Amino acid sequence: MRVAVIGTGLIGTSIALALRKHGSRVWLADTDPAAARLAADLGAGELQPQPLPASWDPADVAVIAVPPAAVAATLADAQARGLARCYTDVASVKQLPVAQARARGCDMTSYVPGHPLAGREKHGPAAARADLFLGRTWALCVAPETSGKATETVTDLVRECGAVPMRTEAAAHDRWVALISHAPHLVAAAMAARLETAPHEALELAGQGLRDVTRIAAGDSGLWTQILSANATPVAEVLTAVAADLAEAARMLTEGAPGEKSVAALLDRGQAGVARIPGKHGGEAREFTVVQVVIPDRPGELARLFEATGAAGLNIEDVRIEHSPGLPVGVAELSVRPAEAAPLLAALKAGGWPVRG
Amino acid sequence: MRVAVIGTGLIGTSIALALRKHGSRVWLADTDPAAARLAADLGAGELQPQPLPASWDPADVAVIAVPPAAVAATLADAQARGLARCYTDVASVKQLPVAQARARGCDMTSYVPGHPLAGREKHGPAAARADLFLGRTWALCVAPETSGKATETVTDLVRECGAVPMRTEAAAHDRWVALISHAPHLVAAAMAARLETAPHEALELAGQGLRDVTRIAAGDSGLWTQILSANATPVAEVLTAVAADLAEAARMLTEGAPGEKSVAALLDRGQAGVARIPGKHGGEAREFTVVQVVIPDRPGELARLFEATGAAGLNIEDVRIEHSPGLPVGVAELSVRPAEAAPLLAALKAGGWPVRG
Repeated sequence: MRVAVIGTGLIGTSIALALRKHGSRVWLADTDPAAARLAADLGAGELQPQPLPASWDPADVAVIAVPPAAVAATLADAQARGLARCYTDVASVKQLPVAQARARGCDMTSYVPGHPLAGREKHGPAAARADLFLGRTWALCVAPETSGKATETVTDLVRECGAVPMRTEAAAHDRWVALISHAPHLVAAAMAARLETAPHEALELAGQGLRDVTRIAAGDSGLWTQILSANATPVAEVLTAVAADLAEAARMLTEGAPGEKSVAALLDRGQAGVARIPGKHGGEAREFTVVQVVIPDRPGELARLFEATGAAGLNIEDVRIEHSPGLPVGVAELSVRPAEAAPLLAALKAGGWPVRG
Repeated sequence: MRVAVIGTGLIGTSIALALRKHGSRVWLADTDPAAARLAADLGAGELQPQPLPASWDPADVAVIAVPPAAVAATLADAQARGLARCYTDVASVKQLPVAQARARGCDMTSYVPGHPLAGREKHGPAAARADLFLGRTWALCVAPETSGKATETVTDLVRECGAVPMRTEAAAHDRWVALISHAPHLVAAAMAARLETAPHEALELAGQGLRDVTRIAAGDSGLWTQILSANATPVAEVLTAVAADLAEAARMLTEGAPGEKSVAALLDRGQAGVARIPGKHGGEAREFTVVQVVIPDRPGELARLFEATGAAGLNIEDVRIEHSPGLPVGVAELSVRPAEAAPLLAALKAGGWPVRG
């Protein structure tokens, strides 16, 4: 495959690296020449000749990996130059770039709007990884006018990156991402914001629950402001509904008996919602049994632990270490399929581990 | 130490088990005789004689491990019977039982209201563990009239359980727990509730962020309704503030430019709030470097991984396995102190692991 990547940030460079691993030829370009140069130095491809030579043979596909608001202009320019036979982008919102591309009169038959559901906290080409998309969903917003050939080529590119293509439609995509990514980010931020002025003693009481609820609020504020603004309407819809439920719960709590009923109903709905999040490997959420093991906080303890489980031929589906404030021990929580819980307990007990399960 | 435990659920039985490990003599009682019997069978102590014999020598301390609304009546009854020299309880709210005990005319000099910050998803004596309180904070709400002797005895009991006593005051305790535990539970539930009717395809896009934000919403609705109702005012205050911030963010998002400013400010406040949550071992939040390793999802892979890190003498501070929908591989994220990141990368690369860090 011959691929042109425009925008050599984290996502663009990662795509280039992933494709290069499969033998594709990749040309790199960025409005910041140093970023393109760095990506090339990292082995992501060669610099795209500027301007394109008269003899330029269009690439199979051009990946436009620029911020949402810059996609349409970049696409129009690339199409005018005959850079590639088809085009895709990677913006985390889809209606905005599609509408802007239409308004600019871009050729919509060769443009397959895309969005890989992958990312890191770091940015720029230095943070890029060839395996960033392994097993990740990659949304493709194929429109009625999109050509079958363009769709096929971009789908191939997604698979080459190790991702799982998922056909969707731009408005639905934006609503879905608002629900499962953008709104949760603001909800975490709003909860975390309450901690800003909290007394130190209150935070001393914090457990794993608070840490999990607020973790993603540590992300880059500038980047997230852009994302949220570009998907404002569906994000605002989710936030309005969450805010209404919370305000109603607060009201019901302070007004007594009817509150209990309503609060219980909200908790029940939350429980039902969590249960719908698919489990590992994209299948239905699987029931795991959690076995807890107390481990000293020093080198080699996790190694000893996993030696014991590995020797018993057991597959640990997930592991989480509980932070134990004030004491140099932790609790490792090992998730296994229910049938493997008893053998795991036996193996750990045999190894002298203090277990609970 | 001679201890009477009233209420042999998860917490009461765990306290009894912890104290027995240190040689205390423990008497058990529960309104459900089968629960007390089970706790005794588990080695938590002996059944308390009913009624107390005339020759009864009061225990050093009685632990009242019953639901919040039942604490005062249980305390009054135990004091009338001369069960112990001092008393404590374990309810996760403190103003309610204290006010009710005062109203009943209980002896407040011998009562040290307490709250161990520990728990499990399971309930009842069978779920009890002697190490449940290891390294956990245990709030003690000492009042002006509480005797020094009672405070000293209950503090000793907390330490015997392996927990870290923290002196506080009931109203402050309830406000703090509302902020760091009760309100986050409802916030997670309100976000998760939006998923209840979401299209399946939207949930297919879910990543680790959504899983973390909503995880605690899977807890027991009945139990949480009781907890929230018993701490209604401070929980409602936090929820009202979070709801207002979210409603305001929604409004600003849909009204354009001033919204970006406000949304960015909320994100900044969230970031500052997260940064205030103390790190492992109750100290200041420590900066960890995360190294990512791609691992096949089969038995023995984590063992191989931790063998390599253990052999290199490296202490993994935390580990998280990223669920990769659609592909039989996962990404293990290993957190280490920054100085250990380079040796960890070297050790893993030497072992043939595909790493990112």
